[in-house]
Amino acid sequence: MTASTFLDPVSDAMPRVETLLRGIDKVGIPWMESVLQHILGSSGKRVRPALVLLAGQVATYDLDLLVPMAAAIELLHTATLVHDDTVDKSALRRGIATINSLWSGETAVLVGDYLFANSADLVSTTGNVRVMRLFAQTLMHMAAGELSQVFSAYRWQQTREEYYQRIGRKTAVLFAMATESGAVLGGADEPAVQALKSYGQNLGLAFQLVDDILDFTGSAEELGKPAGSDLMQGTLTLPALLLLERYPQDNPVRAALEAHGSPELVQQAIEMARNSSVIDEAYAEAREFSLRARAELHHLRDCPARLAMEGLAESMLERRA
Amino acid sequence: MTASTFLDPVSDAMPRVETLLRGIDKVGIPWMESVLQHILGSSGKRVRPALVLLAGQVATYDLDLLVPMAAAIELLHTATLVHDDTVDKSALRRGIATINSLWSGETAVLVGDYLFANSADLVSTTGNVRVMRLFAQTLMHMAAGELSQVFSAYRWQQTREEYYQRIGRKTAVLFAMATESGAVLGGADEPAVQALKSYGQNLGLAFQLVDDILDFTGSAEELGKPAGSDLMQGTLTLPALLLLERYPQDNPVRAALEAHGSPELVQQAIEMARNSSVIDEAYAEAREFSLRARAELHHLRDCPARLAMEGLAESMLERRA
Repeated sequence: MTASTFLDPVSDAMPRVETLLRGIDKVGIPWMESVLQHILGSSGKRVRPALVLLAGQVATYDLDLLVPMAAAIELLHTATLVHDDTVDKSALRRGIATINSLWSGETAVLVGDYLFANSADLVSTTGNVRVMRLFAQTLMHMAAGELSQVFSAYRWQQTREEYYQRIGRKTAVLFAMATESGAVLGGADEPAVQALKSYGQNLGLAFQLVDDILDFTGSAEELGKPAGSDLMQGTLTLPALLLLERYPQDNPVRAALEAHGSPELVQQAIEMARNSSVIDEAYAEAREFSLRARAELHHLRDCPARLAMEGLAESMLERRA
Repeated sequence: MTASTFLDPVSDAMPRVETLLRGIDKVGIPWMESVLQHILGSSGKRVRPALVLLAGQVATYDLDLLVPMAAAIELLHTATLVHDDTVDKSALRRGIATINSLWSGETAVLVGDYLFANSADLVSTTGNVRVMRLFAQTLMHMAAGELSQVFSAYRWQQTREEYYQRIGRKTAVLFAMATESGAVLGGADEPAVQALKSYGQNLGLAFQLVDDILDFTGSAEELGKPAGSDLMQGTLTLPALLLLERYPQDNPVRAALEAHGSPELVQQAIEMARNSSVIDEAYAEAREFSLRARAELHHLRDCPARLAMEGLAESMLERRA
């Protein structure tokens, strides 16, 4: 499966999602429109909105409900990126200048809030109480996750459990919301809703694990930001945790964090990871989550959307950026 | 009516609102708890949550729905203050150090997001789609209002219409949401819902107008921040607009804005306002909104909550801080 084959079953509906996304930059402030175009235009492969539509296609494919939900998920995702980049003072995201670096941190705060609000508004157009509650709870988890990430920054004494809780709240909860809301709005029965929610959760964990591995193995060109960004910002990910477990003495990860992300020590940690088996080990964990995600789909009826979601779970392990 | 007599009919329920507000600081991050205690403890008179309860008391007084809504409104209000102070780089609010000055702008961004999320979550516990949609749309208006305030900062060529649109989005929309949601959750009939919504809208305009006047007439001690803060931050309010209309030549308001809030020129503008009739004129406009607010209540049944809301509208004109 190529990077975008998973979009095939929903390729009819994705342009409607794009239209909704483009529609929110009509606020009558010319400056604002250019900011919104900058971020919404530079987004990635729209994996999260596609998941809403794919999950919805497993049951009745009601696009009048699914399209606003899909757009809402992308806006929520974008809003969190805008605020996270501001908090982390990141200059680049996917090779493109961040709002906080191009305009200002203050602009980024307000633009993020505006995106959150638009996202909530789109969700509310579904008129579905369960989905609206899910949205609010997802917001809570993500905000708490980002807070705990900032709170634990540069702390090298962390457990795998803390790591998984953190990436669960930071990433997996949004993937799970995408598939659960798609299933609910598609009118799937409860076992199918739960299977799709669990698929999203496991897919999200695999996605973030691979993201965290790529920060050790990728080139700056592939990543669109310097390799080792996580350690530089004080974020302890699985490859780093495995290095700490394996080599408790004179560990460059610990030294890099204690030196508040010193680039030389981060570079040493990256080389140590590349020359050890921790990358393979981390991939083995990602593979496990990808397999669990696919296993959840066995409960669903056979259809192109299910096949696409299986392929998407498989392709997680092959992505390079 | 004294400052807090309006709370009398809902004094039984306000402690339940406080308990909910205090409950959100249980996130398991000790540092976070102290931040949340700092802001939720230092809040004002809880006018907005009281409005939810008062509006709900006009119909059936269902506290299981009204209390979470009242707490949600206060959290939303607090979240916007936290982000606004960060954007404006304000050091003080009601005489107390802001989060951005005490901790950091980054902390304030995340804490604000966490409060927004908690607010959305509380609203969603009502299970009422209309109120959940109202919440999302209020968020949108407020975010757009704050953006347009930042966008128009230090521009002296503004109209009264722009001013009223701005304070409508910044303040009145939240007061209107308080009374509308209270009425809806209280099961009021549609004419009563509309009357209470309009009451909230007009009350909010009167409230903000008086706020903007006090920034010219109050002392730093009364205000809990330096007088003239609005002009220093480039915000053009009604007294300043009236001065510009009255004295188009050699106007200190224009000079202060062109000099990006120079304290000496702001002081000149304050003295000019105090020595002219623009303060009386601005109060006359505030009185008009207060009267309109009270007129809306004539449609409602006679009850202690209605009397309290009438008194609250009257007391707007007398407040000093």
